[in-house]
Amino acid sequence: MTLRLYDLAGADPNRRFSPYCWRIRLALAHKKLPVETIPWRFTDKQEIAPSGQIFVPVLVDGERWIADSWTIANYLENKYPDFPSLFGGATARSLTRYYSSFADGLVGAMFPFLALDILSHVADQDRSYFRETREKRVGTTLEAFVADRETKLPGFRASLTPLRLALKSQPFLGGDQPLYADYAVFGPFQGARCISPFALLEEGDAIRLWRDRLLDCFGGLARSAPAYDV
Amino acid sequence: MTLRLYDLAGADPNRRFSPYCWRIRLALAHKKLPVETIPWRFTDKQEIAPSGQIFVPVLVDGERWIADSWTIANYLENKYPDFPSLFGGATARSLTRYYSSFADGLVGAMFPFLALDILSHVADQDRSYFRETREKRVGTTLEAFVADRETKLPGFRASLTPLRLALKSQPFLGGDQPLYADYAVFGPFQGARCISPFALLEEGDAIRLWRDRLLDCFGGLARSAPAYDV
Repeated sequence: MTLRLYDLAGADPNRRFSPYCWRIRLALAHKKLPVETIPWRFTDKQEIAPSGQIFVPVLVDGERWIADSWTIANYLENKYPDFPSLFGGATARSLTRYYSSFADGLVGAMFPFLALDILSHVADQDRSYFRETREKRVGTTLEAFVADRETKLPGFRASLTPLRLALKSQPFLGGDQPLYADYAVFGPFQGARCISPFALLEEGDAIRLWRDRLLDCFGGLARSAPAYDV
Repeated sequence: MTLRLYDLAGADPNRRFSPYCWRIRLALAHKKLPVETIPWRFTDKQEIAPSGQIFVPVLVDGERWIADSWTIANYLENKYPDFPSLFGGATARSLTRYYSSFADGLVGAMFPFLALDILSHVADQDRSYFRETREKRVGTTLEAFVADRETKLPGFRASLTPLRLALKSQPFLGGDQPLYADYAVFGPFQGARCISPFALLEEGDAIRLWRDRLLDCFGGLARSAPAYDV
């Protein structure tokens, strides 16, 4: 039975921009598991109610509904042990846990650059939900929140120095081949380019070169998605 | 032949406060390799000249001089493969590379809290060297640099959220047992408590509980060092 994945989409159902869903898209491709993705909007809470969660990704495997990207990754690894490993062993799985949290933090760190671009792409029915929940969270209007993003950019880029140094010494976080640690951290960068023309990474940046290598994985799965060329 | 480690010390030769040296102290203990540590001061560049480096840690193994903590960790893993693994396999070694850079970044992130306390502990011959090099780097006096450290503390603690979340779900970054990833990140926290009474971590913080577990490893190697109870 084909797996199904609820995948955050914009007004254009082909514009998929969730950092968390992209991790799972690549994890499924790594496991060579076919998936049917279902475009989902922020306000479609009822559709994923069986998962017990109100956010995507939500994976449906037969009768099982699984939410939360780290939980889904572990579910896939445990349920399909004979397919290529997402983690590279028990110790590597433990070491990957922090990458997942680090990547979640990146989503927050990118939001001051992307907030208004996300608003411009969400479906009509999501616009007021998105604006209200996010403006409450950041304590100002989305317009004001992103107004000084150029000023904030050098600090954001500098904050990525540890990641940059690691990726200068090896092609992927997992070594010569990508693993879930890579997909977790790639998710925010892919989500960003799917929603915003704002260049978070400089050309030539080791992080951008790594991101580009991941765009080419799995037959260009991530590269072929609707996105900006940044 | 016993290994020798050049280890940064203060005016008190027993006060060892280098985050980078602490990583290697624990790595050597993990490998069950006895070591003779040699107290070294910032201005003792000549003593470690055979390493080609002007910073510690520097490890001497017979005729070999090895500098840089990541290089030393890899040297120990390769040279002593029959001793307990520092990384937990080839994939885990690749995944550990980023932890090393992340930990280096933590050293920088802690410096606005510790700069003046370090000055108060360094050996007399190091005082002007330390003040001049660090004031040039931060662009102000060390006194001015640390003056608002209480104000900066909430931001520093918040920046540790990803690490905190990972350590809430497992005892060590490496899983049930500590690995080099743990020692790398522990180094800055241990260096801090060896030099400063300033409490970087709140009581009850999952990061502090993890740090305390590491203090108890190897017969309390890190806990028994001269340090503040913070």
